[in-house]
Amino acid sequence: MERAQTTTIRQRLSGVLAPVLTPFDAKLQPDAGRFARHCKWLLSQGLRGLAVFGTTSEANSLSVEEREALLETLLGSGVAPGALLPGTGCCALTDTVRLTRAAVRAGCTGVLVLPPFYYKAVTDEGLFRAFSEVIERVGDSRLRMYLYHIPPIAHVGFSLKLVERLVTAYPGTVAGMKDSSGDIANTKAVIDAFAKDGFEVFSGSEKFLLENLRRGGAGCITATGNVNPAAIDRLYRNFGSPEAEGMQARLNAVRNAFEKRPVIPALKAVLAHFSRDASWRTVRPPLLELPANETGALVDDLQKAGFEMQLS
Amino acid sequence: MERAQTTTIRQRLSGVLAPVLTPFDAKLQPDAGRFARHCKWLLSQGLRGLAVFGTTSEANSLSVEEREALLETLLGSGVAPGALLPGTGCCALTDTVRLTRAAVRAGCTGVLVLPPFYYKAVTDEGLFRAFSEVIERVGDSRLRMYLYHIPPIAHVGFSLKLVERLVTAYPGTVAGMKDSSGDIANTKAVIDAFAKDGFEVFSGSEKFLLENLRRGGAGCITATGNVNPAAIDRLYRNFGSPEAEGMQARLNAVRNAFEKRPVIPALKAVLAHFSRDASWRTVRPPLLELPANETGALVDDLQKAGFEMQLS
Repeated sequence: MERAQTTTIRQRLSGVLAPVLTPFDAKLQPDAGRFARHCKWLLSQGLRGLAVFGTTSEANSLSVEEREALLETLLGSGVAPGALLPGTGCCALTDTVRLTRAAVRAGCTGVLVLPPFYYKAVTDEGLFRAFSEVIERVGDSRLRMYLYHIPPIAHVGFSLKLVERLVTAYPGTVAGMKDSSGDIANTKAVIDAFAKDGFEVFSGSEKFLLENLRRGGAGCITATGNVNPAAIDRLYRNFGSPEAEGMQARLNAVRNAFEKRPVIPALKAVLAHFSRDASWRTVRPPLLELPANETGALVDDLQKAGFEMQLS
Repeated sequence: MERAQTTTIRQRLSGVLAPVLTPFDAKLQPDAGRFARHCKWLLSQGLRGLAVFGTTSEANSLSVEEREALLETLLGSGVAPGALLPGTGCCALTDTVRLTRAAVRAGCTGVLVLPPFYYKAVTDEGLFRAFSEVIERVGDSRLRMYLYHIPPIAHVGFSLKLVERLVTAYPGTVAGMKDSSGDIANTKAVIDAFAKDGFEVFSGSEKFLLENLRRGGAGCITATGNVNPAAIDRLYRNFGSPEAEGMQARLNAVRNAFEKRPVIPALKAVLAHFSRDASWRTVRPPLLELPANETGALVDDLQKAGFEMQLS
């Protein structure tokens, strides 16, 4: 109990967040109205926040202007900026600065920042300079930057030494990490090295939620949070209970059903199915919609795993 | 001889092009004036064209607006659009459409298009749709699209089947490829499959120039064209001569000196050295400038390889 209290005190951001799916219309344009409605539903399910413009959001298939417009609509619709952790990391320094500045000025609780991911085999020094340049240019003490480590997709990531340089140079500003490496050993190493100083470490999947929390991490930012938010959040709130292991096992069964398919199209297909709104299935290329016959098999798998989706 | 004549007739674009280095000022902003001067010097050395906004150009570290402004300055400075093959491929569909449309409207001879490169393990069908969507949205019969295949960096590339689908669906519009796979066997396979129909295949390095041309390819688009344009162009113009093998060997020796270092910073360091303009050394993060002591060693290596740089 004492540890939990300490955690509550030192952590500014903790819990379960969803990298929100981005709905598109038939012309592949982002649908801001459906986006805002989905965001509000997710928050109504208990999620701590919304990591809009993440990988699951197909944010890297959106222009800077499209992200800006969606954020404006979302804030205009009444979603509190304190619930938002937008993704702002682009290949181009100037784009990252522009999106980060806008998020900070809007009062967002933080930003989740990919490293510049086009050039490969770059050095820690080069990445340090990239992040340093963004922080200095934004030049705002309200900035809370979360490092987005997703080497399976970005192919550029954060070494422990790089994280150490960044938190040392920018304490408080470099506030945490989302670890989507899929390697819990890496997550634990980051937690062990930095969590004691208030660095908030999120796992990139609820599969690691219990291990993350027991080790002293801050929670998870997870794609399946888009469709299974309440159950994932329940484990977060009850991770010390005797039922936690069972809850984790049930979450894993649901997750596995998604991971057997291309996850983003599968999530959109399930949201389309349960919301009876087929337009949710649309993805931007290079992704492809889940074929209709696979959607049926996925829904079957989910029902066997005890999945329920209660859309208001 | 008959083959060479056929080649001349059917190829719209052939020769040596440089992916032009982008100069930055001390604030890491693109320097349009120096950029235009470098472009004009390259053309004065005999190059067929300028593949501005390529990998070597650090174009993926530039925003869409920065690329647009540089292109406008370049055209305003009197460089003919027929010499330009700008890179326009971004992660976001809408960015690629915007840059491609602008290039076509400006009269550029073509565009060199990366696949959307954030999402990995995407399908040929997804990539086909991505390119199809760009072509349909641009909707301009003047569009000549060159596919930019650079799997070592983009980690997303073009299979032969994908190229076949694209050239079949958009004959004349999907006009060629730059193959930066580093795998001459792949280049030969693409040439063998598609060159007979007028598909123009460029190697991504002058190391493969002679093999490319002998097989029926269109030339090369090469980073070292920024500093060694005349010698590379000489091999292109004389690839049937008895001296061609010797010329290729000398080009390779120069290329090897660069490839022992991070190529983009090394090219900028050499250009800074010979132009006596240290500001050329500047790169945007995540790249790093070549350390001063390494520049000296590189210049030594280049001189041993018989390299000369004659800046007007």
